[in-house]
Amino acid sequence: MPEIRILTESELRDLVILDLAAINCVEGAFRSLASGNVVMPPVLSMAIPDHHGEVDVKTAYVPDLPSFAIKVSPGFFNNPQIGLPSTSGLMMLFSTSTGVLESLLLDNGYLTDVRTAAAGAVAARHLSREDAATACVIGAGVQARLQLKALTLVRPIKQAVIWARDPAKAEVMAEDMRADLGLDVVVAAKAETAVAAADIVVTTTPATDPVVLPEWLIPGQHITAMGSDQPGKNELAPGCFQRADLYVSDRLSQTRKMGELRSVIEAGLVSGVEVFPELGDIVAGAAEGRSSPEQITIADLTGTGVQDTAIAIFARARAEAASAGTEFKT
Amino acid sequence: MPEIRILTESELRDLVILDLAAINCVEGAFRSLASGNVVMPPVLSMAIPDHHGEVDVKTAYVPDLPSFAIKVSPGFFNNPQIGLPSTSGLMMLFSTSTGVLESLLLDNGYLTDVRTAAAGAVAARHLSREDAATACVIGAGVQARLQLKALTLVRPIKQAVIWARDPAKAEVMAEDMRADLGLDVVVAAKAETAVAAADIVVTTTPATDPVVLPEWLIPGQHITAMGSDQPGKNELAPGCFQRADLYVSDRLSQTRKMGELRSVIEAGLVSGVEVFPELGDIVAGAAEGRSSPEQITIADLTGTGVQDTAIAIFARARAEAASAGTEFKT
Repeated sequence: MPEIRILTESELRDLVILDLAAINCVEGAFRSLASGNVVMPPVLSMAIPDHHGEVDVKTAYVPDLPSFAIKVSPGFFNNPQIGLPSTSGLMMLFSTSTGVLESLLLDNGYLTDVRTAAAGAVAARHLSREDAATACVIGAGVQARLQLKALTLVRPIKQAVIWARDPAKAEVMAEDMRADLGLDVVVAAKAETAVAAADIVVTTTPATDPVVLPEWLIPGQHITAMGSDQPGKNELAPGCFQRADLYVSDRLSQTRKMGELRSVIEAGLVSGVEVFPELGDIVAGAAEGRSSPEQITIADLTGTGVQDTAIAIFARARAEAASAGTEFKT
Repeated sequence: MPEIRILTESELRDLVILDLAAINCVEGAFRSLASGNVVMPPVLSMAIPDHHGEVDVKTAYVPDLPSFAIKVSPGFFNNPQIGLPSTSGLMMLFSTSTGVLESLLLDNGYLTDVRTAAAGAVAARHLSREDAATACVIGAGVQARLQLKALTLVRPIKQAVIWARDPAKAEVMAEDMRADLGLDVVVAAKAETAVAAADIVVTTTPATDPVVLPEWLIPGQHITAMGSDQPGKNELAPGCFQRADLYVSDRLSQTRKMGELRSVIEAGLVSGVEVFPELGDIVAGAAEGRSSPEQITIADLTGTGVQDTAIAIFARARAEAASAGTEFKT
C-alpha cells in the first residue's frame, strides 16, 4: 500500500523560510514556464458569497520535475470575526508519471506566502536597478513584510518607507522590520511620499481602487504589484502603465483577466491581445529586462501554479532530508 | 489545533456502497443544482501528454450543505503496464462557512464510481419506462457493472445484454453479474443486437467514435451515455439526438463542451446556445421528463461537482456514525 507524507503548517514553517534557496527555486519555475513545455491551466475559482468566501485551485505540470502540485486556497473574509485566519488550504503533490498522490502539505497558505514573496525577489533581481537602496512597501500585512525581506535578499536595500491605510499597522510593521532586517524604516503619512522616495515600490494590498498614481513615479523605479489576483482588484492606476518603459507579467493570460493589466485593458490603453514579456522570458534570457538605469519597469504578479509546484517540491525535499512529517499508510 | 478526518479507500469501500441511499443522495444533489443557488465552476482539466495522463478538478458549493468537496481525479493510462490502476485521486471536504479543511477522502476514485453510477440510476428513475425490464450495457468495465446494478435498484430489470469490444471481458462481466445480481445476462455478438433488445441502454466507454447508431434505437427506449467527460469523446452518433424525443444533460454547460451534445453541435444539428433541460430540472419538477411510453429519451452525463460534494458528505456522515477513519492533528 502506498504511503503519503503529510506535513503540517508548523513543520513546514520549520523547514522552509524565505531565503535565497527559495527565491532560486521560484526563479527556476519561471525559467521553466518560459520553455513553453509547462502545462498550466486557468485558475479554478469559486465564489461562496453567502459566507464572504472564495476558493482558488492552481496547478502546473513542469516536465523536468518529478511531481506536480495542486493547491487549494480558501479565503473566507469573515473568519477574523471568529478568531480564525482568513486564508487556509493545502498543497498536494502527485507523481507526474502515475498521478499517484505522494504528499499533503497542510500549510494553510504559508508556502503561498513564501513563493509569492520569492516572485517579488525574482522580479526585483531582473527588473530593478542593481544599486536599488530604498524600498517602498504599500500595505502592512504578511506579504508587505515578506516582500520587503525578499528585496533585501537580492538588492542592497538600506532604507524602507511604508505606507498603509492603517497608520498604526504601518508603525508596528516598521518596528518589526527594523528589528528583523536591521533597516532604516520609516512610515510615510501619504502614499505619494512613500512612492516618490523609492528605487523599488511593492504594492501588497487587496485594493479595488488604485493606491499608486502615475504622476508619483520617478525615472529608474521598479514597481512590483502583487496584490491583484481576482478580476475586481487594482493597485496601479492605468496611467502607470503608460509611464512605464517595460511592463512584465508573471503570466499574461492571467494578468489580462485578474492582474493590473486587466484595468489597463478596460481603460482602453491597450488591446486584450497585445503581447508583453513574461517574467520567465526575462529570467530565461528570451526577452530583455531593464536596459537603462532611467527606465521605469512594472512587474504584474498574480501568482502562478508553476510557483506552487516548485515550492511544494522544494518543501518536500527539505522534509525528506530532515525526515520530517508523518508517513500515512493508505 | 483543528483535526482532519482521513478516510482510506478500504474504509470508504466498507462505508459506502451503491444502494438506494447513495442514489437518493445524488438525486438530492441534482435537485439542488436545479435551484440555481449552487455555485459550480467549470472543471479544471490539465493534460500531461508526456505520460499519457490527465487530471481533473471538480467542485461545487451547495448552500444547504455544511461543506463543499473539491475532487482531484488523475487518470494515467500507462499505469496498467506497471500494475497500477489508471485512476486515483482524492476528495477534500472544506467548511462552507470558514473554508477550513475538514476531511480527506483518499478514495482513489471509488466515490466517483459510486456517484457516477448513482446518476445513471437517477436518470433511469426519471426518464425510463417504469416497466423497463431489459437493460443493455455497452462496455464491460467498472462502470458497466455499477450502472447495471444501479438500474436494478430503480427498475424491475430481469435481463441484461452486454456488448463490449473485448468479448472475453463481456463474458466475465456477464458471469459476475449473473452471480451478483441474479439476472439473466447474455453477451451480444454485435452492439446493434444488444441495443435493439433493450428498454434501457447505458454506454460506459471511453469511445471517441460512436458505439451506438441512430437506426438501432427503438421507441420507448431510454439511453444513458456516461462515458464522455472530455472534449474528444463520443459514444452516440449525432443522429441519435435527432431520433430522441427528449434530450437531458446533467449540466448543459458541460455537455456542450465534453458530453454527447458536443458532437451534436459539431455536426451542425443544433446550435451551441440551444437550451435543453437538465436532469436536476426534471428531478425538481421544473421540467417534464418522459411523457409517453413510446418516447425515446437520452441522458447525457459528464459528471458534476455537485455529485462529488453530495457523495463526500454522505461518506463522511457514514464514517462519523461508524467512528471510522483517522483523526489527524494539525
